[in-house]
Amino acid sequence: TKLYITLGVCLAGRFEEEFIKMRMERLQAWMTRMCRHPVIAESEVFQQFLNFRDEKEWKTGKRKAEKDELVGVMIFSTMEPEAPDLDLIEIEQKCEAVGKFTRAMDDGVKELLTVGQEHWKRCTGPLPKEYQKIGKALQSLATVFSSSGYQGETDLNDAITEAGKTYEEIASLVAEQVITVQFQFKISVYLFSLKPILTLLIPFHFYISQGAIEKVKESDKLVATSKITPQDKQNMVKRVGTMSYALQAEMNHFHSNRIYDYNSVIRLYLEQQVQFYETIAEKLRQALGRFPVM
Amino acid sequence: TKLYITLGVCLAGRFEEEFIKMRMERLQAWMTRMCRHPVIAESEVFQQFLNFRDEKEWKTGKRKAEKDELVGVMIFSTMEPEAPDLDLIEIEQKCEAVGKFTRAMDDGVKELLTVGQEHWKRCTGPLPKEYQKIGKALQSLATVFSSSGYQGETDLNDAITEAGKTYEEIASLVAEQVITVQFQFKISVYLFSLKPILTLLIPFHFYISQGAIEKVKESDKLVATSKITPQDKQNMVKRVGTMSYALQAEMNHFHSNRIYDYNSVIRLYLEQQVQFYETIAEKLRQALGRFPVM
Repeated sequence: TKLYITLGVCLAGRFEEEFIKMRMERLQAWMTRMCRHPVIAESEVFQQFLNFRDEKEWKTGKRKAEKDELVGVMIFSTMEPEAPDLDLIEIEQKCEAVGKFTRAMDDGVKELLTVGQEHWKRCTGPLPKEYQKIGKALQSLATVFSSSGYQGETDLNDAITEAGKTYEEIASLVAEQVITVQFQFKISVYLFSLKPILTLLIPFHFYISQGAIEKVKESDKLVATSKITPQDKQNMVKRVGTMSYALQAEMNHFHSNRIYDYNSVIRLYLEQQVQFYETIAEKLRQALGRFPVM
Repeated sequence: TKLYITLGVCLAGRFEEEFIKMRMERLQAWMTRMCRHPVIAESEVFQQFLNFRDEKEWKTGKRKAEKDELVGVMIFSTMEPEAPDLDLIEIEQKCEAVGKFTRAMDDGVKELLTVGQEHWKRCTGPLPKEYQKIGKALQSLATVFSSSGYQGETDLNDAITEAGKTYEEIASLVAEQVITVQFQFKISVYLFSLKPILTLLIPFHFYISQGAIEKVKESDKLVATSKITPQDKQNMVKRVGTMSYALQAEMNHFHSNRIYDYNSVIRLYLEQQVQFYETIAEKLRQALGRFPVM
């Protein structure tokens, strides 16, 4: 469980920078994410970060963490996967699959954000303006009708005026609701995308594993020239296997979070959309109810 | 009741031209409007137009109608308004009020059609494309997620795929519904605007009355130079008063139709809008229902 202490140090240093740059809600959600991580959440450094009371206590903890020698690849030496050893081909395939998935997911999320952005831009800009214009045009028409001097059209003109006002309300509703939804959705998708977890943890495993795989591949030459023994090579493969298991564990944790998070964010988005369209329908139904039945 | 026979002739002639130019639904609605007119509906020519069985019958009727001498201002000579005589100032005010109202209504209706047009243009063009893109982006994301190799996310991915398809359905729904609504609304507003009735009947009264008023104004000079007697002038005022009553009767008929028609068309529009937004809300609610509760 000392495993991620090193990472904890990186994270703690990073927190100091991010504290200023990150917006509160991003930080909050990111923090939740970190707390959900089974290893990070229990690491000494993370606990110390969450609980320190003054500058002095913080510096002491930081200095202690900096003395930790289990940095970089060394953390893998603390791991003992309770699973069969893997051969190099299996390891390579697993690493490649992770790389492929992360790239595809990055593209998929970017695409969704791009089309969403385009849609929301229109929804906050021209669309409310149009609803407003329709509202104004209806109200003008009611004013013209009122000037006819003809008796018995007060009900109709009042109803048209109210329908006009309803369209103006819908204009504000569209603008406001879209801004809220857009904000929440962007934040969520950003947070649940690869950025916060993957840029910190996954690449750490991923690139180390990839580098290690390359080294193991070169080791055949070293065995051939008797620079290392076949047993040394076997140990190298075993270590890379451990890295691969660690990467897989990290990915599994990521996937389970991803499933939960995307389910939540899309549910929330759809709920808001349903409510949004129902509110519009209800407002229009009320406007409709004001028209006299003839 | 012979009053509008002349107009009937004009109309009959016009029908022949309009028959080709006018679209079926416009003609239908225009016909309904004519049938609703208390005088036109009962006029001989109109009845003959509705009932003629062959070319020969039609030509006979037309020729008979063409012999009618009550054309132009002459139709007013058949009217006996059962109301007090009006003085010139009252007559002028009434005519001006009609002119003012028709111009204002024309502007109001044009404004509504313009903003509607702008809105519908956007709704049929970019908006469905955006919904389609959102639908596609969601489906792509589900495909990416499915490639994770992680167990137990089939429900989520199926739900995201369905949500994507729902957005594609909404895209078609927006495009189709908007086209229907736009068409109906435009046709209705066109029909219930000044065009069909006013360009045929109201201006007929309106311009004749205005011309007549000018003549009566000039008649003071004629009386001064003894070219007509004061009694002649009095008769002229009386005739213009009759025209003014006829104009008012036409306007009253127009107003009562307008109130009924605008009430119907706006009710219909709002009903369709309510149904439209409720359908979207329902579709999204179904999409939402497919997401697993975690």
